Amino acid sequence: MTVTTYKECIDACIRCMNVCNVSYVSSLKGLDIFELRECLRLDRECADLCGVAIQAMTRNSPFVAEICELVAKACDACAEECMKHPHEHCQECVRVCRECASICRGILVAA
Amino acid sequence: MTVTTYKECIDACIRCMNVCNVSYVSSLKGLDIFELRECLRLDRECADLCGVAIQAMTRNSPFVAEICELVAKACDACAEECMKHPHEHCQECVRVCRECASICRGILVAA
Amino acid sequence: MTVTTYKECIDACIRCMNVCNVSYVSSLKGLDIFELRECLRLDRECADLCGVAIQAMTRNSPFVAEICELVAKACDACAEECMKHPHEHCQECVRVCRECASICRGILVAA
Amino acid sequence: MTVTTYKECIDACIRCMNVCNVSYVSSLKGLDIFELRECLRLDRECADLCGVAIQAMTRNSPFVAEICELVAKACDACAEECMKHPHEHCQECVRVCRECASICRGILVAA
Repeated sequence: MTVTTYKECIDACIRCMNVCNVSYVSSLKGLDIFELRECLRLDRECADLCGVAIQAMTRNSPFVAEICELVAKACDACAEECMKHPHEHCQECVRVCRECASICRGILVAA
Repeated sequence: MTVTTYKECIDACIRCMNVCNVSYVSSLKGLDIFELRECLRLDRECADLCGVAIQAMTRNSPFVAEICELVAKACDACAEECMKHPHEHCQECVRVCRECASICRGILVAA
Repeated sequence: MTVTTYKECIDACIRCMNVCNVSYVSSLKGLDIFELRECLRLDRECADLCGVAIQAMTRNSPFVAEICELVAKACDACAEECMKHPHEHCQECVRVCRECASICRGILVAA
Repeated sequence: MTVTTYKECIDACIRCMNVCNVSYVSSLKGLDIFELRECLRLDRECADLCGVAIQAMTRNSPFVAEICELVAKACDACAEECMKHPHEHCQECVRVCRECASICRGILVAA
Protein backbone atom coordinates (compact mmCIF):
# COMPACT_ATOMS: atom_id res chain seq x y z
CA MET A 1 0.00 0.00 0.00
CA THR A 2 1.45 3.36 -0.94
CA VAL A 3 -0.65 6.52 -1.18
CA THR A 4 -3.82 5.67 0.67
CA THR A 5 -3.14 4.16 4.05
CA TYR A 6 -5.61 2.50 6.41
CA LYS A 7 -5.16 5.49 8.72
CA GLU A 8 -6.64 7.85 6.16
CA CYS A 9 -9.46 5.42 5.35
CA ILE A 10 -10.28 4.78 9.01
CA ASP A 11 -10.55 8.53 9.54
CA ALA A 12 -12.78 8.90 6.46
CA CYS A 13 -15.08 6.11 7.67
CA ILE A 14 -15.30 7.68 11.13
CA ARG A 15 -16.26 11.05 9.63
CA CYS A 16 -18.79 9.34 7.36
CA MET A 17 -20.38 7.30 10.15
CA ASN A 18 -20.64 10.45 12.23
CA VAL A 19 -22.19 12.57 9.44
CA CYS A 20 -24.63 9.80 8.45
CA ASN A 21 -25.77 9.35 12.03
CA VAL A 22 -26.12 13.09 12.57
CA SER A 23 -28.17 13.32 9.37
CA TYR A 24 -30.23 10.34 10.57
CA VAL A 25 -31.05 12.06 13.84
CA SER A 26 -31.86 15.35 12.08
CA SER A 27 -34.11 13.58 9.56
CA LEU A 28 -35.95 11.77 12.36
CA LYS A 29 -36.73 15.10 14.04
CA GLY A 30 -37.89 17.00 10.96
CA LEU A 31 -41.49 17.73 10.01
CA ASP A 32 -40.61 16.51 6.50
CA ILE A 33 -39.56 13.03 7.59
CA PHE A 34 -41.81 11.52 4.91
CA GLU A 35 -39.67 13.10 2.18
CA LEU A 36 -36.50 11.97 3.94
CA ARG A 37 -37.46 8.33 4.58
CA GLU A 38 -35.03 6.98 1.98
CA CYS A 39 -32.24 9.11 3.50
CA LEU A 40 -33.02 7.58 6.88
CA ARG A 41 -32.75 4.11 5.43
CA LEU A 42 -29.45 4.74 3.66
CA ASP A 43 -27.92 6.79 6.49
CA ARG A 44 -28.30 3.76 8.76
CA GLU A 45 -26.89 1.36 6.14
CA CYS A 46 -23.92 3.60 5.51
CA ALA A 47 -23.17 4.31 9.17
CA ASP A 48 -23.36 0.63 10.09
CA LEU A 49 -21.07 -0.45 7.24
CA CYS A 50 -18.57 2.30 8.11
CA GLY A 51 -18.51 0.87 11.63
CA VAL A 52 -17.79 -2.59 10.25
CA ALA A 53 -14.97 -1.19 8.10
CA ILE A 54 -13.34 0.67 10.98
CA GLN A 55 -13.27 -2.49 13.10
CA ALA A 56 -11.97 -4.50 10.13
CA MET A 57 -9.14 -2.07 9.32
CA THR A 58 -8.00 -1.69 12.91
CA ARG A 59 -7.70 -5.47 13.23
CA ASN A 60 -6.14 -5.88 9.79
CA SER A 61 -8.92 -8.16 8.55
CA PRO A 62 -8.19 -10.26 5.45
CA PHE A 63 -11.49 -8.87 4.09
CA VAL A 64 -10.64 -5.17 4.21
CA ALA A 65 -10.74 -4.77 0.42
CA GLU A 66 -14.20 -6.31 0.07
CA ILE A 67 -15.57 -4.40 3.04
CA CYS A 68 -14.19 -1.08 1.74
CA GLU A 69 -15.71 -1.78 -1.66
CA LEU A 70 -19.06 -2.31 0.05
CA VAL A 71 -18.71 0.90 2.06
CA ALA A 72 -17.99 2.77 -1.18
CA LYS A 73 -21.22 1.42 -2.69
CA ALA A 74 -23.22 2.39 0.39
CA CYS A 75 -21.64 5.87 0.33
CA ASP A 76 -22.58 6.27 -3.34
CA ALA A 77 -26.19 5.25 -2.68
CA CYS A 78 -26.46 7.51 0.36
CA ALA A 79 -24.93 10.49 -1.48
CA GLU A 80 -27.21 9.99 -4.48
CA GLU A 81 -30.30 10.07 -2.28
CA CYS A 82 -29.16 12.97 -0.09
CA MET A 83 -28.41 14.98 -3.26
CA LYS A 84 -32.18 15.29 -3.76
CA HIS A 85 -32.67 17.26 -0.55
CA PRO A 86 -31.61 20.85 0.17
CA HIS A 87 -31.15 20.35 3.94
CA GLU A 88 -27.74 21.32 5.23
CA HIS A 89 -27.28 17.90 6.92
CA CYS A 90 -28.11 16.15 3.64
CA GLN A 91 -25.64 18.27 1.67
CA GLU A 92 -22.95 17.64 4.27
CA CYS A 93 -23.75 13.93 3.94
CA VAL A 94 -23.25 14.10 0.16
CA ARG A 95 -19.85 15.73 0.57
CA VAL A 96 -18.53 13.37 3.24
CA CYS A 97 -19.97 10.20 1.65
CA ARG A 98 -18.32 11.03 -1.66
CA GLU A 99 -15.01 11.70 0.02
CA CYS A 100 -15.29 8.42 1.93
CA ALA A 101 -16.22 6.46 -1.22
CA SER A 102 -13.20 7.88 -3.00
CA ILE A 103 -10.79 7.04 -0.19
CA CYS A 104 -12.26 3.52 0.16
CA ARG A 105 -11.69 2.98 -3.55
CA GLY A 106 -8.10 4.13 -3.01
CA ILE A 107 -7.71 1.18 -0.62
CA LEU A 108 -8.83 -1.14 -3.40
CA VAL A 109 -6.30 0.24 -5.88
CA ALA A 110 -3.52 0.06 -3.33
CA ALA A 111 -4.42 -3.43 -2.09
CA MET B 1 -27.37 -20.83 35.69
CA THR B 2 -30.52 -22.82 36.22
CA VAL B 3 -33.85 -21.83 34.71
CA THR B 4 -33.00 -19.38 32.00
CA THR B 5 -30.20 -20.58 29.78
CA TYR B 6 -28.23 -18.55 27.20
CA LYS B 7 -29.87 -20.63 24.48
CA GLU B 8 -33.30 -19.34 25.40
CA CYS B 9 -32.04 -15.78 25.69
CA ILE B 10 -30.15 -15.93 22.39
CA ASP B 11 -33.34 -17.11 20.68
CA ALA B 12 -35.35 -14.34 22.32
CA CYS B 13 -32.83 -11.69 21.19
CA ILE B 14 -32.89 -13.07 17.64
CA ARG B 15 -36.69 -12.90 17.55
CA CYS B 16 -36.59 -9.39 18.99
CA MET B 17 -33.97 -8.11 16.54
CA ASN B 18 -36.00 -9.57 13.71
CA VAL B 19 -39.32 -8.07 14.83
CA CYS B 20 -37.75 -4.66 15.55
CA ASN B 21 -36.13 -4.55 12.12
CA VAL B 22 -39.32 -5.68 10.39
CA SER B 23 -41.24 -2.97 12.25
CA TYR B 24 -38.52 -0.47 11.28
CA VAL B 25 -38.88 -1.32 7.60
CA SER B 26 -42.69 -1.19 7.81
CA SER B 27 -42.59 2.18 9.60
CA LEU B 28 -40.22 3.59 6.97
CA LYS B 29 -42.66 2.66 4.21
CA GLY B 30 -45.84 3.98 5.83
CA LEU B 31 -47.60 7.24 5.00
CA ASP B 32 -47.76 7.90 8.74
CA ILE B 33 -44.00 7.81 9.26
CA PHE B 34 -44.18 11.13 11.13
CA GLU B 35 -46.27 9.51 13.87
CA LEU B 36 -43.90 6.54 13.98
CA ARG B 37 -40.58 8.43 14.14
CA GLU B 38 -39.94 7.51 17.77
CA CYS B 39 -40.67 3.85 16.93
CA LEU B 40 -38.09 4.04 14.16
CA ARG B 41 -35.52 5.41 16.58
CA LEU B 42 -36.15 2.80 19.25
CA ASP B 43 -36.50 -0.11 16.81
CA ARG B 44 -32.96 0.57 15.61
CA GLU B 45 -31.61 0.91 19.16
CA CYS B 46 -33.27 -2.32 20.24
CA ALA B 47 -32.26 -4.32 17.15
CA ASP B 48 -28.64 -3.18 17.40
CA LEU B 49 -28.37 -3.99 21.10
CA CYS B 50 -29.97 -7.42 20.55
CA GLY B 51 -27.25 -8.05 17.96
CA VAL B 52 -24.58 -7.11 20.48
CA ALA B 53 -26.13 -9.44 23.06
CA ILE B 54 -26.30 -12.40 20.67
CA GLN B 55 -22.60 -12.03 19.83
CA ALA B 56 -21.74 -11.62 23.52
CA MET B 57 -23.67 -14.69 24.63
CA THR B 58 -22.33 -16.94 21.87
CA ARG B 59 -18.76 -16.04 22.87
CA ASN B 60 -19.49 -16.25 26.61
CA SER B 61 -18.51 -12.63 27.21
CA PRO B 62 -17.74 -11.63 30.81
CA PHE B 63 -20.19 -8.75 30.24
CA VAL B 64 -23.29 -10.80 29.37
CA ALA B 65 -25.19 -9.72 32.49
CA GLU B 66 -24.67 -6.00 31.86
CA ILE B 67 -25.45 -6.32 28.14
CA CYS B 68 -28.65 -8.27 28.82
CA GLU B 69 -29.69 -5.65 31.37
CA LEU B 70 -29.21 -3.01 28.68
CA VAL B 71 -31.21 -5.01 26.13
CA ALA B 72 -34.03 -5.32 28.66
CA LYS B 73 -34.08 -1.52 29.06
CA ALA B 74 -34.11 -1.00 25.30
CA CYS B 75 -36.93 -3.54 24.93
CA ASP B 76 -38.96 -1.74 27.62
CA ALA B 77 -38.50 1.61 25.89
CA CYS B 78 -39.34 0.18 22.48
CA ALA B 79 -42.44 -1.64 23.78
CA GLU B 80 -43.66 1.45 25.61
CA GLU B 81 -43.46 3.53 22.45
CA CYS B 82 -44.95 0.87 20.14
CA MET B 83 -47.88 0.49 22.59
CA LYS B 84 -49.10 3.88 21.38
CA HIS B 85 -49.68 2.69 17.83
CA PRO B 86 -52.35 0.30 16.57
CA HIS B 87 -50.33 -1.07 13.64
CA GLU B 88 -49.96 -4.81 13.62
CA HIS B 89 -46.13 -4.58 13.35
CA CYS B 90 -46.08 -2.27 16.39
CA GLN B 91 -48.25 -4.57 18.46
CA GLU B 92 -46.08 -7.55 17.49
CA CYS B 93 -43.08 -5.48 18.56
CA VAL B 94 -44.66 -4.85 21.97
CA ARG B 95 -45.26 -8.55 22.50
CA VAL B 96 -41.80 -9.73 21.44
CA CYS B 97 -39.90 -6.91 23.19
CA ARG B 98 -41.66 -7.66 26.48
CA GLU B 99 -40.91 -11.34 26.17
CA CYS B 100 -37.26 -10.56 25.38
CA ALA B 101 -36.97 -8.14 28.31
CA SER B 102 -38.37 -10.75 30.64
CA ILE B 103 -35.98 -13.45 29.44
CA CYS B 104 -33.00 -11.08 29.60
CA ARG B 105 -33.90 -10.28 33.21
CA GLY B 106 -33.99 -14.04 33.83
CA ILE B 107 -30.32 -14.11 32.83
CA LEU B 108 -29.61 -11.49 35.47
CA VAL B 109 -31.34 -13.44 38.23
CA ALA B 110 -29.61 -16.66 37.21
CA ALA B 111 -26.15 -15.08 36.85
CA MET C 1 -36.48 -15.09 -4.69
CA THR C 2 -37.57 -18.71 -4.97
CA VAL C 3 -35.64 -21.56 -3.42
CA THR C 4 -33.41 -19.92 -0.86
CA THR C 5 -35.26 -17.48 1.32
CA TYR C 6 -33.80 -14.94 3.73
CA LYS C 7 -35.28 -17.00 6.57
CA GLU C 8 -33.09 -19.98 5.69
CA CYS C 9 -30.03 -17.78 5.27
CA ILE C 10 -30.63 -15.89 8.51
CA ASP C 11 -30.83 -19.23 10.33
CA ALA C 12 -27.62 -20.45 8.64
CA CYS C 13 -25.78 -17.26 9.65
CA ILE C 14 -27.00 -17.57 13.23
CA ARG C 15 -25.77 -21.18 13.42
CA CYS C 16 -22.47 -20.15 11.86
CA MET C 17 -21.92 -17.20 14.20
CA ASN C 18 -22.68 -19.47 17.13
CA VAL C 19 -20.35 -22.27 16.03
CA CYS C 20 -17.52 -19.84 15.19
CA ASN C 21 -17.80 -18.15 18.56
CA VAL C 22 -17.94 -21.47 20.40
CA SER C 23 -14.85 -22.60 18.50
CA TYR C 24 -13.19 -19.27 19.33
CA VAL C 25 -13.81 -19.75 23.04
CA SER C 26 -12.62 -23.38 22.92
CA SER C 27 -9.47 -22.39 21.02
CA LEU C 28 -8.72 -19.65 23.55
CA LYS C 29 -8.86 -22.16 26.40
CA GLY C 30 -6.75 -24.89 24.81
CA LEU C 31 -3.11 -25.65 25.59
CA ASP C 32 -2.50 -25.74 21.84
CA ILE C 33 -3.67 -22.16 21.22
CA PHE C 34 -0.46 -21.48 19.26
CA GLU C 35 -1.51 -24.02 16.62
CA LEU C 36 -5.02 -22.58 16.56
CA ARG C 37 -4.13 -18.88 16.24
CA GLU C 38 -5.28 -18.63 12.63
CA CYS C 39 -8.57 -20.33 13.60
CA LEU C 40 -9.05 -17.72 16.30
CA ARG C 41 -8.50 -14.94 13.79
CA LEU C 42 -10.90 -16.35 11.21
CA ASP C 43 -13.54 -17.43 13.74
CA ARG C 44 -13.84 -13.79 14.83
CA GLU C 45 -13.99 -12.52 11.24
CA CYS C 46 -16.64 -15.03 10.31
CA ALA C 47 -18.77 -14.53 13.43
CA ASP C 48 -18.70 -10.74 13.06
CA LEU C 49 -19.65 -10.83 9.38
CA CYS C 50 -22.47 -13.29 10.09
CA GLY C 51 -23.78 -10.80 12.63
CA VAL C 52 -23.67 -8.04 10.00
CA ALA C 53 -25.55 -10.27 7.53
CA ILE C 54 -28.27 -11.18 10.03
CA GLN C 55 -28.94 -7.50 10.77
CA ALA C 56 -28.87 -6.68 7.04
CA MET C 57 -31.32 -9.42 6.08
CA THR C 58 -33.78 -8.68 8.88
CA ARG C 59 -33.92 -5.04 7.77
CA ASN C 60 -34.02 -5.89 4.08
CA SER C 61 -30.83 -3.96 3.32
CA PRO C 62 -30.17 -3.07 -0.33
CA PHE C 63 -26.71 -4.59 0.21
CA VAL C 64 -27.80 -8.10 1.22
CA ALA C 65 -26.29 -9.73 -1.88
CA GLU C 66 -22.86 -8.15 -1.38
CA ILE C 67 -22.86 -8.88 2.34
CA CYS C 68 -23.84 -12.53 1.81
CA GLU C 69 -21.09 -12.89 -0.79
CA LEU C 70 -18.64 -11.59 1.80
CA VAL C 71 -19.94 -13.99 4.45
CA ALA C 72 -19.51 -16.87 2.01
CA LYS C 73 -15.85 -15.86 1.48
CA ALA C 74 -15.26 -15.62 5.23
CA CYS C 75 -16.92 -19.02 5.73
CA ASP C 76 -14.67 -20.56 3.05
CA ALA C 77 -11.54 -19.13 4.66
CA CYS C 78 -12.60 -20.24 8.13
CA ALA C 79 -13.52 -23.75 6.96
CA GLU C 80 -10.22 -24.12 5.06
CA GLU C 81 -8.23 -23.25 8.17
CA CYS C 82 -10.31 -25.35 10.59
CA MET C 83 -9.91 -28.34 8.23
CA LYS C 84 -6.28 -28.53 9.34
CA HIS C 85 -7.18 -29.31 12.94
CA PRO C 86 -8.68 -32.51 14.36
CA HIS C 87 -10.51 -30.83 17.26
CA GLU C 88 -14.22 -31.53 17.39
CA HIS C 89 -15.04 -27.79 17.56
CA CYS C 90 -12.91 -27.20 14.45
CA GLN C 91 -14.57 -29.98 12.51
CA GLU C 92 -18.01 -28.71 13.53
CA CYS C 93 -16.89 -25.27 12.32
CA VAL C 94 -15.92 -26.73 8.92
CA ARG C 95 -19.32 -28.35 8.53
CA VAL C 96 -21.40 -25.34 9.55
CA CYS C 97 -19.24 -22.78 7.67
CA ARG C 98 -19.56 -24.77 4.45
CA GLU C 99 -23.30 -25.07 4.86
CA CYS C 100 -23.56 -21.33 5.54
CA ALA C 101 -21.38 -20.47 2.51
CA SER C 102 -23.56 -22.61 0.30
CA ILE C 103 -26.80 -21.04 1.53
CA CYS C 104 -25.34 -17.51 1.23
CA ARG C 105 -24.41 -18.28 -2.37
CA GLY C 106 -28.01 -19.42 -2.90
CA ILE C 107 -29.09 -15.89 -1.97
CA LEU C 108 -26.82 -14.55 -4.70
CA VAL C 109 -28.29 -16.83 -7.35
CA ALA C 110 -31.84 -16.07 -6.25
CA ALA C 111 -31.28 -12.29 -6.00
CA MET D 1 -23.06 18.33 29.63
CA THR D 2 -20.16 20.64 30.34
CA VAL D 3 -16.59 19.40 30.58
CA THR D 4 -16.68 16.03 28.91
CA THR D 5 -18.43 16.20 25.58
CA TYR D 6 -19.42 13.30 23.33
CA LYS D 7 -16.74 14.47 20.90
CA GLU D 8 -14.01 13.79 23.44
CA CYS D 9 -15.52 10.44 24.39
CA ILE D 10 -16.00 9.36 20.77
CA ASP D 11 -12.33 10.12 20.13
CA ALA D 12 -11.28 8.19 23.24
CA CYS D 13 -13.36 5.16 22.18
CA ILE D 14 -11.86 5.28 18.67
CA ARG D 15 -8.33 5.34 20.11
CA CYS D 16 -9.21 2.52 22.47
CA MET D 17 -10.78 0.32 19.77
CA ASN D 18 -7.73 0.89 17.63
CA VAL D 19 -5.20 0.09 20.37
CA CYS D 20 -7.15 -2.99 21.52
CA ASN D 21 -7.35 -4.35 17.98
CA VAL D 22 -3.67 -3.64 17.33
CA SER D 23 -2.80 -5.44 20.57
CA TYR D 24 -5.10 -8.30 19.52
CA VAL D 25 -3.30 -8.70 16.20
CA SER D 26 0.13 -8.51 17.88
CA SER D 27 -0.88 -11.08 20.51
CA LEU D 28 -2.17 -13.44 17.80
CA LYS D 29 1.20 -13.31 16.05
CA GLY D 30 3.41 -13.81 19.10
CA LEU D 31 5.15 -17.01 20.13
CA ASP D 32 3.82 -16.39 23.64
CA ILE D 33 0.16 -16.39 22.63
CA PHE D 34 -0.61 -18.89 25.40
CA GLU D 35 0.38 -16.31 28.02
CA LEU D 36 -1.65 -13.64 26.23
CA ARG D 37 -4.89 -15.59 25.75
CA GLU D 38 -6.80 -13.57 28.32
CA CYS D 39 -5.55 -10.34 26.65
CA LEU D 40 -6.91 -11.62 23.34
CA ARG D 41 -10.28 -12.28 24.90
CA LEU D 42 -10.55 -8.89 26.58
CA ASP D 43 -9.09 -6.95 23.65
CA ARG D 44 -11.95 -8.21 21.48
CA GLU D 45 -14.57 -7.45 24.14
CA CYS D 46 -13.23 -3.95 24.63
CA ALA D 47 -12.85 -3.15 20.91
CA ASP D 48 -16.36 -4.38 20.13
CA LEU D 49 -17.97 -2.41 22.95
CA CYS D 50 -16.04 0.73 21.95
CA GLY D 51 -17.52 0.29 18.47
CA VAL D 52 -21.01 0.06 19.95
CA ALA D 53 -20.39 3.22 21.99
CA ILE D 54 -19.14 5.22 19.00
CA GLN D 55 -22.24 4.34 16.98
CA ALA D 56 -24.47 5.11 19.98
CA MET D 57 -22.90 8.52 20.66
CA THR D 58 -22.94 9.62 17.01
CA ARG D 59 -26.67 8.84 16.83
CA ASN D 60 -27.41 10.33 20.24
CA SER D 61 -28.79 7.07 21.60
CA PRO D 62 -30.94 7.27 24.75
CA PHE D 63 -28.65 4.55 26.15
CA VAL D 64 -25.34 6.40 25.89
CA ALA D 65 -24.84 6.54 29.66
CA GLU D 66 -25.35 2.80 30.16
CA ILE D 67 -23.19 1.93 27.15
CA CYS D 68 -20.35 4.20 28.31
CA GLU D 69 -20.53 2.66 31.78
CA LEU D 70 -20.14 -0.75 30.15
CA VAL D 71 -17.20 0.42 28.05
CA ALA D 72 -15.54 1.74 31.19
CA LYS D 73 -15.90 -1.69 32.83
CA ALA D 74 -14.48 -3.44 29.76
CA CYS D 75 -11.58 -0.98 29.68
CA ASP D 76 -10.84 -1.64 33.36
CA ALA D 77 -10.84 -5.41 32.81
CA CYS D 78 -8.65 -5.13 29.72
CA ALA D 79 -6.18 -2.77 31.41
CA GLU D 80 -5.95 -5.00 34.49
CA GLU D 81 -5.07 -8.02 32.35
CA CYS D 82 -2.64 -6.19 30.07
CA MET D 83 -0.85 -4.82 33.15
CA LYS D 84 0.50 -8.33 33.73
CA HIS D 85 2.46 -8.35 30.48
CA PRO D 86 5.59 -6.36 29.61
CA HIS D 87 4.89 -6.18 25.86
CA GLU D 88 4.84 -2.67 24.46
CA HIS D 89 1.41 -3.24 22.86
CA CYS D 90 0.03 -4.41 26.22
CA GLN D 91 1.42 -1.41 28.05
CA GLU D 92 -0.02 0.92 25.41
CA CYS D 93 -3.33 -0.87 25.88
CA VAL D 94 -3.22 -0.23 29.63
CA ARG D 95 -2.60 3.48 29.08
CA VAL D 96 -5.31 4.01 26.46
CA CYS D 97 -7.92 1.80 28.19
CA ARG D 98 -7.49 3.71 31.43
CA GLU D 99 -7.83 7.03 29.66
CA CYS D 100 -10.94 5.79 27.84
CA ALA D 101 -12.50 4.45 31.07
CA SER D 102 -11.91 7.79 32.75
CA ILE D 103 -13.47 9.78 29.90
CA CYS D 104 -16.45 7.39 29.70
CA ARG D 105 -17.05 7.90 33.42
CA GLY D 106 -16.95 11.66 32.76
CA ILE D 107 -19.94 11.13 30.45
CA LEU D 108 -21.77 9.49 33.34
CA VAL D 109 -21.12 12.36 35.74
CA ALA D 110 -22.13 14.93 33.14
CA ALA D 111 -25.26 13.06 32.02
